[in-house]
Amino acid sequence: MSIVTCDLTVSLDGYAAGPNPTRERPFGDVVGTGEVLHSWMFDHAANHEDEIAGILDADAYVMGRGMFSPDTGPWDPAWRGWWGEEPPYRAPVFVLTHHAREPLEMGETTFTFVTDGLVEAMTRARLAAGERPVSVAGGTDLVNQCLRAGIVDELRIHVVPVVLAVPGGTRLFDGVGRLDLDPAGARWTPEVTHLTYRRRAD
Amino acid sequence: MSIVTCDLTVSLDGYAAGPNPTRERPFGDVVGTGEVLHSWMFDHAANHEDEIAGILDADAYVMGRGMFSPDTGPWDPAWRGWWGEEPPYRAPVFVLTHHAREPLEMGETTFTFVTDGLVEAMTRARLAAGERPVSVAGGTDLVNQCLRAGIVDELRIHVVPVVLAVPGGTRLFDGVGRLDLDPAGARWTPEVTHLTYRRRAD
Repeated sequence: MSIVTCDLTVSLDGYAAGPNPTRERPFGDVVGTGEVLHSWMFDHAANHEDEIAGILDADAYVMGRGMFSPDTGPWDPAWRGWWGEEPPYRAPVFVLTHHAREPLEMGETTFTFVTDGLVEAMTRARLAAGERPVSVAGGTDLVNQCLRAGIVDELRIHVVPVVLAVPGGTRLFDGVGRLDLDPAGARWTPEVTHLTYRRRAD
Repeated sequence: MSIVTCDLTVSLDGYAAGPNPTRERPFGDVVGTGEVLHSWMFDHAANHEDEIAGILDADAYVMGRGMFSPDTGPWDPAWRGWWGEEPPYRAPVFVLTHHAREPLEMGETTFTFVTDGLVEAMTRARLAAGERPVSVAGGTDLVNQCLRAGIVDELRIHVVPVVLAVPGGTRLFDGVGRLDLDPAGARWTPEVTHLTYRRRAD
């Protein structure tokens, strides 16, 4: 069976985003948060080819509503995500939401909106991916929910060497509860330290 | 001039201790917290010789009151720390406190109680260490205070692969505010991942 992977970029103090994301500022209203966290993949891509390839190596994705849109309530059909007309996933993406919406085909990526909960979304992603990996694409709330449910086989944390101190932001591991993982890798670079953890075998 | 180092063992969610430390439970009232965090150095010492040697490589230490004693208020002279009659520091240790106390000589370690604040304690430690390293011995509150003050040259974080989820515990980087560091090392083992960061050059 395919494995479930998850990549998340966080600060030294565990933040993946600041508070109050909007359409204009997906990483919250503390100016520069998104840039500081993701400079490693945009400005230093050549130093991190394997890790970047890993993020996009899945054949299906599960995504939280907040990762697709900062809005709440029924969908604004004009909103088509943050990624332009050619999203980088190039695979089926199952977006968890309480509000139904027709599938959205954008380039090689199809966003399918799932209103039946995490298990249904994960099942559909697994069926779509076959033997290939399924990735939990974020946001952090969904990542934490999946960690709590014990369904992440490989967690790849990209730690940016900055203490962000953005209270009210979203933090990896918040609400996960006690969880033991198995370390499986660590690579440091000037821009970011890549840490790999695996689900502990029962 | 000597460098200022700091070693701290933390969980994946950044906790160095749980809430409500006591004489009997220095790492707080969530049973097992201290054991989970420090098993790597006590039960697997052979896998971590360099890191353990590094912790004790300083020629002087600065320590917070809470690391020497969980009590508050004036000293109980009967309390002589958690380390038995031969503390592992084997060097001068300057304990920051609001309450004066005569120096305490225990084996090769002398605890000197400093009531004039962090700068005074650090100055005395630097004078004692000469060209050799000074270490910030903890607890976490003092570590965070020193990070905020920008006086830690090398921060060595030992990350245990467990989400502890001990709300009210003490967390590395709490209250430090925005801080950029330079990664300088990463080594993973089954028990713990060792990360080294340096103070960013001005």
